Amino acid sequence: MIELSPIGRVRTPITATSEAPRQGSNDDIEGTIELESEYEAGLAGIEAGDSLIVVWFAHEADRTLLRLDRIEGRGVFASRSPARPNPIVLTTVEVLAMDGSTLTVRGVDMVDKSPVLDLKVPLD
Amino acid sequence: MIELSPIGRVRTPITATSEAPRQGSNDDIEGTIELESEYEAGLAGIEAGDSLIVVWFAHEADRTLLRLDRIEGRGVFASRSPARPNPIVLTTVEVLAMDGSTLTVRGVDMVDKSPVLDLKVPLD
Repeated sequence: MIELSPIGRVRTPITATSEAPRQGSNDDIEGTIELESEYEAGLAGIEAGDSLIVVWFAHEADRTLLRLDRIEGRGVFASRSPARPNPIVLTTVEVLAMDGSTLTVRGVDMVDKSPVLDLKVPLD
Repeated sequence: MIELSPIGRVRTPITATSEAPRQGSNDDIEGTIELESEYEAGLAGIEAGDSLIVVWFAHEADRTLLRLDRIEGRGVFASRSPARPNPIVLTTVEVLAMDGSTLTVRGVDMVDKSPVLDLKVPLD
């Protein structure tokens, strides 16, 4: 068993899973990433305009589902659905502004208050 | 605290963190992803030739580091380093073959026997 402690949470205008946009259709939704202040040093070098991958935990997701009925029995590992045994979701956002350990970003699709596990830069 | 149970592990020819290639320089290294058999149904729809993002746990990483000395104090969240509070690493691989719950893949950069948390398809 692996234990992870969230580094912060995301604040978004999305209050229910049913309201969450499909990935790729969320380009205009703004939110904030509130890191715990102890992690602020880890943000050094991030600037407005940068792309960041938010690694977050879909705490409301169905962790028992292995096939998605809506796409002809496709397996969850062949999808981007939040439903999966370990519901770790990746969302790429654009940084709009930074203030201490809080980042204002565009492109969120998380339900409000979702736990954030990690931030990293895209490979390209 | 979030508890995650690995869905499997990766077998690679890399036996020490010091041997691991930097991301993007690992295009030719082959390995296998051995899922626990209970998750095989989640692979439905994945075929040889597909790209997959492997979400894995760098269990040997330094989880206390927040700045990387080697790049002028850059924060870990502005990097792809495995060193970070929650060392979840993303590696995109190409599926070469499938056999039950085992996938042969190309493009690995994990130390042998690293725990796998999730598999998902790239967004594009």
